[in-house]
Amino acid sequence: MRIALDAMGTDAHPEPELWAVREAARRWPEDTFLLVGPEDRLAPALQDLPDPVRQRIQLVHAPQVFTGMDKPGRDLRRKMDSSMAVGMRLLKEGEAQAFVTMGNTAGALAYALLLLGRMPGLKRPALMVPVPTARGRMAYLLDAGANAECRAEFLYQFAVMGAVYAQHLQGRAQPKVALLANGEEPTKGTPLTREAWQLLEQSDLNFVGYVEPKELFQGEVDVVVTDGFTGNIVLKTMEALTRLITDSLKAGLGLSWRTKLGALLAMPAFRHMKQSLLDPREVGAVPLMGVNGLVFIGHGRFDGYAVLSGLARAREAVASGFLEKLRQAIQASLPAQERAA
Amino acid sequence: MRIALDAMGTDAHPEPELWAVREAARRWPEDTFLLVGPEDRLAPALQDLPDPVRQRIQLVHAPQVFTGMDKPGRDLRRKMDSSMAVGMRLLKEGEAQAFVTMGNTAGALAYALLLLGRMPGLKRPALMVPVPTARGRMAYLLDAGANAECRAEFLYQFAVMGAVYAQHLQGRAQPKVALLANGEEPTKGTPLTREAWQLLEQSDLNFVGYVEPKELFQGEVDVVVTDGFTGNIVLKTMEALTRLITDSLKAGLGLSWRTKLGALLAMPAFRHMKQSLLDPREVGAVPLMGVNGLVFIGHGRFDGYAVLSGLARAREAVASGFLEKLRQAIQASLPAQERAA
Repeated sequence: MRIALDAMGTDAHPEPELWAVREAARRWPEDTFLLVGPEDRLAPALQDLPDPVRQRIQLVHAPQVFTGMDKPGRDLRRKMDSSMAVGMRLLKEGEAQAFVTMGNTAGALAYALLLLGRMPGLKRPALMVPVPTARGRMAYLLDAGANAECRAEFLYQFAVMGAVYAQHLQGRAQPKVALLANGEEPTKGTPLTREAWQLLEQSDLNFVGYVEPKELFQGEVDVVVTDGFTGNIVLKTMEALTRLITDSLKAGLGLSWRTKLGALLAMPAFRHMKQSLLDPREVGAVPLMGVNGLVFIGHGRFDGYAVLSGLARAREAVASGFLEKLRQAIQASLPAQERAA
Repeated sequence: MRIALDAMGTDAHPEPELWAVREAARRWPEDTFLLVGPEDRLAPALQDLPDPVRQRIQLVHAPQVFTGMDKPGRDLRRKMDSSMAVGMRLLKEGEAQAFVTMGNTAGALAYALLLLGRMPGLKRPALMVPVPTARGRMAYLLDAGANAECRAEFLYQFAVMGAVYAQHLQGRAQPKVALLANGEEPTKGTPLTREAWQLLEQSDLNFVGYVEPKELFQGEVDVVVTDGFTGNIVLKTMEALTRLITDSLKAGLGLSWRTKLGALLAMPAFRHMKQSLLDPREVGAVPLMGVNGLVFIGHGRFDGYAVLSGLARAREAVASGFLEKLRQAIQASLPAQERAA
């Protein structure tokens, strides 16, 4: 198996990526890892590896970085030698079977569309994000921001893709699929969600109707579908509110010697909370849904362990033929006359 | 001044309401408080008050309760003798200058529309909710769920109303008004938000463009406007995620004797967090925006102190002529030919 890794994606790049790729090469001796980034920064960190491990890592030179500040509309074309663009080309040319990046999500989506294209029959690709739940497992929300304006058939295909992921890569039998809405009754929502409801109800999916955010966070469903405007705002509300709450708690714990001592003693509790809700290592990398290649996206805050688990997920996806299952599900979701020959 | 109070709105009704109205009658000897609810449940609790205080509280009998389980579509007409409906009628008939309720928000809106109607020239009333921010003061988000489907001119009028509130009842000079969106660039958003942007940009409001949830929670703006579908989902995401985080923290703090002791010592920190972010007493009651009468809505979880502060806010609104200012601002926002004679 050949897996490409963007060496420049995390906020602390390339250290977490280097740690992860060294560990991966030790752990999976059958595989080859293509580490994409500026050769001069990466090569020295691999020199001390024992030869057999070293040989499982191929450096692929990419002089540029598509950073978190870059915008696809402005910077895509002038960074065609970025680690992200080069990684996508490795996929396209069959040099790698999966590409893992912790870089700019909008950039990854734009490069994937430009260089790989979308799957046959798919109207729009989607960003999927894991959402922590009270059950201690993730729910999957899509679209989290790829398409601010959606039609009902987009939402329907997002549901199809989310269900394939939940079933084949998360091992959920008959994954429960829901539409995000402002109430549970079928009369709630908007014309868009009501039309999507009709499509989902007629489908083979295990569609359970509307859910509100409460049911999403309680973990009552596996896949929650919404348009990319709402999904993006939900994602950013989650991030901003989590930050606000944890900052406020930290400020409170620094108030006095008493609270500082309390914080010290209560440390395992904060670790418990962080691991169950906030830890990107637990949250994990997820595939970019619907592009013509296996691209796994993680978070810029990932540490080496989280990058390694992103590589592990990409390996599982390759091994299980996830991409082909997704292609088939998209084809099966189409009216007969729209299917590829 | 005559202020009506729904005795049956809080989850723990009528105790918090009784405590609040007794305290209010002591504190504001010029005013009369109309306590609306089942007379037999309320009267005994007022008997022990000294005569001068007792006389400032008028019981107004209402045998029914519009509960949190009731739905406006189904239950409005059969509960026309609920404390909520009776309170609205007191407003309509000029018996009270403001009505304060902690009950079912959808019910309050429906009764207000049915019995009071909306302000002249206003397209749609809105639910406004306070959002805690890192600056330790609230931002105000509307519409939080009254109108799942909005047109740009609705959003514009929501902004007008939010700004009047922020300026006249929260003392913010030149309140900053923003549209909620999935990015800050004017090209982001949807056709709805882009059209609203045009209207807001041409207005007299201090419009600062789009904000993402991050800027909302950082307190960079005073008023954030969105459609009632998105706003409702943001509100419910806030509630559900706050619950998930605090539950997870509590579970972590109960893990061992060490963490339990830590929790005990750190108690002031949790109180600090709760007060600055989660406490409905700090969050406060807010007016139902755009109905033809001064209706203040609080949260079912309010305790007596929070109900009392709801009464205080209603008094301030009456004293400052808030309703008239809102009416004038709505008229001023209209094209000349649509203004009331």
